[in-house]
Amino acid sequence: MRVAVLGVGLIGGSIGLAARGLGHEVAGWDVDPDALAAAVERNAVDRAATSVADALVDAAVCFVCVPVGALGELALEALAAAPEECVVSDVGSTKRSLAAATGDERFIGGHPLAGSEASGIAHARPDLFDDATWYLTPGERSSGVLYERLHSLIVAFGARPAAIDAETHDQLMAVTSHLPHVLANVLIDQAGDRLREHGAAVPRIGPSLRDATRVAGANPAIWTDIFMSNAETLSEEIREVARALEQVADRLADSERDALDDWHRHAREQRRLLLEADLAGGPVHELRVAVPNRPGIVAQVALALGRGGVNIVDMALAPAPDNRSGSITLWVAGDGAAARAAELVGELGFPVHGAG
Amino acid sequence: MRVAVLGVGLIGGSIGLAARGLGHEVAGWDVDPDALAAAVERNAVDRAATSVADALVDAAVCFVCVPVGALGELALEALAAAPEECVVSDVGSTKRSLAAATGDERFIGGHPLAGSEASGIAHARPDLFDDATWYLTPGERSSGVLYERLHSLIVAFGARPAAIDAETHDQLMAVTSHLPHVLANVLIDQAGDRLREHGAAVPRIGPSLRDATRVAGANPAIWTDIFMSNAETLSEEIREVARALEQVADRLADSERDALDDWHRHAREQRRLLLEADLAGGPVHELRVAVPNRPGIVAQVALALGRGGVNIVDMALAPAPDNRSGSITLWVAGDGAAARAAELVGELGFPVHGAG
Repeated sequence: MRVAVLGVGLIGGSIGLAARGLGHEVAGWDVDPDALAAAVERNAVDRAATSVADALVDAAVCFVCVPVGALGELALEALAAAPEECVVSDVGSTKRSLAAATGDERFIGGHPLAGSEASGIAHARPDLFDDATWYLTPGERSSGVLYERLHSLIVAFGARPAAIDAETHDQLMAVTSHLPHVLANVLIDQAGDRLREHGAAVPRIGPSLRDATRVAGANPAIWTDIFMSNAETLSEEIREVARALEQVADRLADSERDALDDWHRHAREQRRLLLEADLAGGPVHELRVAVPNRPGIVAQVALALGRGGVNIVDMALAPAPDNRSGSITLWVAGDGAAARAAELVGELGFPVHGAG
Repeated sequence: MRVAVLGVGLIGGSIGLAARGLGHEVAGWDVDPDALAAAVERNAVDRAATSVADALVDAAVCFVCVPVGALGELALEALAAAPEECVVSDVGSTKRSLAAATGDERFIGGHPLAGSEASGIAHARPDLFDDATWYLTPGERSSGVLYERLHSLIVAFGARPAAIDAETHDQLMAVTSHLPHVLANVLIDQAGDRLREHGAAVPRIGPSLRDATRVAGANPAIWTDIFMSNAETLSEEIREVARALEQVADRLADSERDALDDWHRHAREQRRLLLEADLAGGPVHELRVAVPNRPGIVAQVALALGRGGVNIVDMALAPAPDNRSGSITLWVAGDGAAARAAELVGELGFPVHGAG
């Protein structure tokens, strides 16, 4: 299979390495010729393409792996050049604006939760996605065949794809990723000012401040754009935090010990619940779903399970000989999750087998 | 030397183990007889005292190691029972309220930056304080001889004492410790609500949220009291964070990309500066300071160096034969810190030797 990678930094380079490790042929392109040369040097790409169109010749899958600020334009350029049967995806941290910009059935947004403060092809590695959640945001018109191809490739990379609609994705990222970055920035700024004011003796960073500000000022080349690309949702979440903080300050100022204690214990419970959910898993069940063979059906099933908190470990499509119907085989981890999956698919009106 | 430990939980038990490891005799007391029996069992104390007064018989040093909520009363009880030449200290996370409650020259507040989510004598260990900052908050009337005794013992525990006035301590703790806990609580709460609203697929806690909320809901038995004991300063710092957040939200809503980029890069710089300061150190210099032999002089020197960002690795007092003057020997790590120490002591009007 031919894979095109546009932008060969940490993520693009790692996709190249992972794809080559699976025996695929990888064409790479980058706006920076030095980065592209380094990607060839590191064997992350087989072929250095001379243009976006050149990279996409005969491609079956294309990943657009540039910073969010440059993503929209390049993704549209890739779709214009891509073959009819090529799935085009991206790895941007926000998904709504690009989803809105294209209704192309070949486009399926993506976002691997991988990477780190380190950036660039020098830090790329084939196992970067091992066990990482990789969000996929198919649109209503996204092709089922292309969705399955992308999903399978991502599973082969070692990641766990999770379908989610673009808007929900951006809201979740606002609280789970962008907001922690904003709070880290604000906290380090205030702590830094205070510590300098008082000229306090070193060492002065305790473990709680260190943990809470680990991502402060992370990679400015990409983070300002990430904030901007999710500005509306993020600004609302930030104002919500500010309101919650004012309430805590009021309770402190009014010595409302019991209310503070309840609030603190509630936070403890919230963290416990999230960690528990994070650790969920169990034996993998196989579910076969009979579906009509029409556009959007795979996305519909994947999104329904995603909304229901069910993680699809793997999936396969099989069209029936009449080409008007077919089946989707889903693998789901955990007894409870498998039962929930069967129920959710049943609610969509599709017969399910094998949820046992 | 006889050491009294009042409250034998994680910190008190670890002090007991560390003191016994140095060959000191440790008398322990606890409001909970089971905890006290466990401390004897673990060899954290030589002798289970039957009362606070019993624990203090012939004590040279007393550590009050109970939660902040119970601290004030017990510290005053300890001072009432303590011998004339006994230094009484505590390990509370806030220092101002207790400092205000006693002007006793035998009292020197303390706060080791050690401990963890684990609590209780079962988790006590003699090396808990290895390399930990241990704040000391001598008052204006605190005895120099007793300060040196406490300082030396803490150094022997493996910790790094740092003198600081009680008010500054509480302001610094507000930003470096209490505020991270408040933000973690607010963040986990909001993220938990959003994730449940959307029933998103697991796993959903990314590394930035995980790090940022590591201390959310930490040990409710002590944290509500810590918040309450620093309510005034903490509520001001919280409102300051809320204001900063509103400003970030405004910039996002108004698409002020450049201002956001400046803000993000400034946070990066702040974190770099703090981490650098944290790693400061270097060769240890010995400074001898000639001082008049009067109360408060040691505290004055220690606080001046603390304010100037100089960490005293170790110290020793030597009274002159006339008993009206004497010398303080200070060990300071780092060439720059030693030069600054000499300058700061010089500014106090005391001759310094050996800053080379």
